[in-house]
Amino acid sequence: MSENIYSKTITSRRSFIEGLAAIGGISLALAGMDALGLGIESEYSTPPNISGGNGKKIVILGAGLAGLTAAYEMSKAGYDCKVIETRSFAGGRCQTARKGFKYTDLMGYSQTCEFDEGHYLNNGPWRIPYHHHSTLYYTKKFNVPLQLFNNDNDNSFVYFEGGTGPLAGKPLRKGKVAADVRGYTSEILAKASKSGALNLPFSAADKDRFIAYLIGEGWLNADTLSYEGTNGRGYEVDPGPGINPGPGIPSKPYAMSDLLGSKAWSVLQSVSDYEQQRVMFQPIGGMDQIAKGFVKNLGDLIQYSTSVKKIAQDANGVSVSWIDGNGVKGVTTADYCICTIPISVLNGIDLQVSPAFKEAMLKVAYAPVNKIGLQMSNRFWEDKYRIYGGHVYNDIPGIRTISLPSYGFQGEKGVLLGYYSFGGEAAKISAKSPADRAAFALEGGQKIFPEYKSSFENSFSFCWHLDKDNLGGWAVWSEEARKEAYPKLCDPDGRIYLAGEHLTYLGGWQAGAIESAWQQIEKIHKRVKA
Amino acid sequence: MSENIYSKTITSRRSFIEGLAAIGGISLALAGMDALGLGIESEYSTPPNISGGNGKKIVILGAGLAGLTAAYEMSKAGYDCKVIETRSFAGGRCQTARKGFKYTDLMGYSQTCEFDEGHYLNNGPWRIPYHHHSTLYYTKKFNVPLQLFNNDNDNSFVYFEGGTGPLAGKPLRKGKVAADVRGYTSEILAKASKSGALNLPFSAADKDRFIAYLIGEGWLNADTLSYEGTNGRGYEVDPGPGINPGPGIPSKPYAMSDLLGSKAWSVLQSVSDYEQQRVMFQPIGGMDQIAKGFVKNLGDLIQYSTSVKKIAQDANGVSVSWIDGNGVKGVTTADYCICTIPISVLNGIDLQVSPAFKEAMLKVAYAPVNKIGLQMSNRFWEDKYRIYGGHVYNDIPGIRTISLPSYGFQGEKGVLLGYYSFGGEAAKISAKSPADRAAFALEGGQKIFPEYKSSFENSFSFCWHLDKDNLGGWAVWSEEARKEAYPKLCDPDGRIYLAGEHLTYLGGWQAGAIESAWQQIEKIHKRVKA
Repeated sequence: MSENIYSKTITSRRSFIEGLAAIGGISLALAGMDALGLGIESEYSTPPNISGGNGKKIVILGAGLAGLTAAYEMSKAGYDCKVIETRSFAGGRCQTARKGFKYTDLMGYSQTCEFDEGHYLNNGPWRIPYHHHSTLYYTKKFNVPLQLFNNDNDNSFVYFEGGTGPLAGKPLRKGKVAADVRGYTSEILAKASKSGALNLPFSAADKDRFIAYLIGEGWLNADTLSYEGTNGRGYEVDPGPGINPGPGIPSKPYAMSDLLGSKAWSVLQSVSDYEQQRVMFQPIGGMDQIAKGFVKNLGDLIQYSTSVKKIAQDANGVSVSWIDGNGVKGVTTADYCICTIPISVLNGIDLQVSPAFKEAMLKVAYAPVNKIGLQMSNRFWEDKYRIYGGHVYNDIPGIRTISLPSYGFQGEKGVLLGYYSFGGEAAKISAKSPADRAAFALEGGQKIFPEYKSSFENSFSFCWHLDKDNLGGWAVWSEEARKEAYPKLCDPDGRIYLAGEHLTYLGGWQAGAIESAWQQIEKIHKRVKA
Repeated sequence: MSENIYSKTITSRRSFIEGLAAIGGISLALAGMDALGLGIESEYSTPPNISGGNGKKIVILGAGLAGLTAAYEMSKAGYDCKVIETRSFAGGRCQTARKGFKYTDLMGYSQTCEFDEGHYLNNGPWRIPYHHHSTLYYTKKFNVPLQLFNNDNDNSFVYFEGGTGPLAGKPLRKGKVAADVRGYTSEILAKASKSGALNLPFSAADKDRFIAYLIGEGWLNADTLSYEGTNGRGYEVDPGPGINPGPGIPSKPYAMSDLLGSKAWSVLQSVSDYEQQRVMFQPIGGMDQIAKGFVKNLGDLIQYSTSVKKIAQDANGVSVSWIDGNGVKGVTTADYCICTIPISVLNGIDLQVSPAFKEAMLKVAYAPVNKIGLQMSNRFWEDKYRIYGGHVYNDIPGIRTISLPSYGFQGEKGVLLGYYSFGGEAAKISAKSPADRAAFALEGGQKIFPEYKSSFENSFSFCWHLDKDNLGGWAVWSEEARKEAYPKLCDPDGRIYLAGEHLTYLGGWQAGAIESAWQQIEKIHKRVKA
């Protein structure tokens, strides 16, 4: 069990969050909601259909995807919107580092991205699931071209040092592991079913179908029901022309006990979990193309480089005090405020809400999250290892996921993701200097690819918990906080409405930010119209 | 077993070929080769390193990928090459129908492609595996930009009319089927392993790991070892913002006996077979970009629209008699001939080779293969069903595979592949007029997508067995022919060398054509240098 939970930790952020929130959290939360008499009615795939804002003033704090969505939809509906953004650009976590991107973190480390033209690192979100209708609604609306993101590559490596036996600590092709583990498993079950050793909960006809399924699933010898390897795991010598290499030489499967010892089986799943699919989307050229799509369609509503100092309200409206990049102070007043500032940051701002609301705000934690982009002088993972996109899952602490780019195939250079780590491991690595982070990433990757260090050119690293405007990658709710604090924060406090991924069950995803905004603007609109 | 073989028939062309050649053909062929003392030395990923052709004359028949490869590499090496091509364009089966593409088949049916700009149908090859080093060698060399091709989409449908029970004849999401069938299977095996009902060939420690693997693979409840569904199969109501929809509503798994009855399990495989991967490549804009890459780098060596009438040879050289599109006759002489004309067509040409060679030529069959592109006025499969690329496998005779485009995502229109069928089914459909083929395809697709017929705008269909210059999609070798006839045809007859996918174990793939050419030009070069 523990080994298995581990595999989900590294392959799924949702599971990571669930792990923190304790197993069963979601279903318990659901049960809790039922107990409260809260039904579930709808899911969101288009924005609320609102109009007639009649110039009511809305101040929106933060130009991340929640703020951009609110500003776009409410402006269109006739509201008078103003967005205050602390960064010098829009998008929030939807940001992309490319040549010239400058960044200083809370440790005081300054970096300027030196990637070659055409290469980039998505510091925040980097892939879009097909069922994030809301995100895809805007990529379609704003004509943001999408390309496929290879999220599960059977020809990529898995690498587990923590196993035992001859396969531990060796880069193994995921497809070979999948073919062999599932092949042997199908063999065991097919033989036991056939021999009658198992009492199957099926009719005799279903038993035959079940065995036929196992033969197909496991590429078994249909006569002997044995797994003897399969061409799907690759050849020792590839088939080719003439009589030499001609049919090629089949590869031999690994031994099952070696596979079980290796831990590599821990990456196998019947289907990807909900948040991931084998093939996902990425905007061509970087995730920030989505933010740019909003900005292009928004007009001049955003006041950049402006920090919010105080958010006050009374029976008639809200007033937001701020200071801009030149030290100029000001106050913006409005009828309502949509505050998308992460709660981690909002906790440090003078905010006029009820004590209960404030107390609820303290119940949400934020996840340490680390990423590093490593520019390589050549695409050795493609040229030598034939890995075109996908991830190298591994158990090297602080590394966990190495990801190969799903763009620029067969080009000269490439930027790969050198680590993607969460929690304590992320906190530890991020304490290093950018140069030391790169050195750490290179040590890890070198274990898997001998070409790693010698191909390295430059790096750009980003630690969300060290970002003063986010103080964490995404919100993490404990099961208890989901029940008590979360519903309170989903409701407005007076004229102040919170919005963002933190107020959804799509934590850390752009779809969460967008749909949260949709929900809150609908509430404001109803109130205005009431 | 029979059900299972069927699934491979529709999901794998290699299996289809192997099916025709009788089960075990490849391994038997390999055993046969070993018996003949033929070792296997190498696999091909780069062209032979040749130089010093010194103007020796080579006549190359056919400007498909085999002919183009031979012409490119031999010209570079100093040979004086001339290519004779029967079509008005280069590429052979590497061809793409787009607006204005005109075609008349052997039935006399003429079509002009009416797809909107930017949309196309690859009449022949349409996807590239990562291990086709030779094809990828040229896409890299000629800077042919590649994009990912979604070859296995869990969110796509499978549709089987031939099953029984409540799930038969219904479009089912492949991922739901995969999650449930593998989940229940893992449950059965995990419980039997835990209870000791099975004698596992493992140590106790391995047994624990095995159970941990099954929990992870099948998304089992770790306490009860039961499969209770998984979020990876999708939600009844998707999670979202606030408390409504909040955590969403999980979906309920299908019943195992319903799944077994449905036959949908027949599309499940531990890993894709060798020739397919979950994610593959396609050149951006159409497969013919590869042929165009060759042409751009080849200079003026190709004489188009010229049919070969006679291929003669003597001790000093070869002479090829031809007639061009204007009825002008001529003879081209050379030191050697590389003939890439499909043997199906070559059998009808006056060819001066030994009787044994001619007899061997009669031993290879060619596969009937059908494709149709259907332009739809909207991308309902994306907008409504959230299927972005991938295939809809089904058991509708003559349809079998409907494929959704992996380009132009979220655009207005789309061209989907309405059927991809082989053998007798293909022969039957192709006897219809183009309009009737479209009507047939629409009837089939309508069963799966209610929007199919009403969205249809125009079609373009291609039947390789009705193409006078190919007379079939690819070569099909019986096991016996592989042993006797095939090696003979791989050897030259005098000064005539055959080349093409038909002389490889990469039948029907561009890599076969390229690598066959590599092998034959190396033989010629050695002979010239001897």
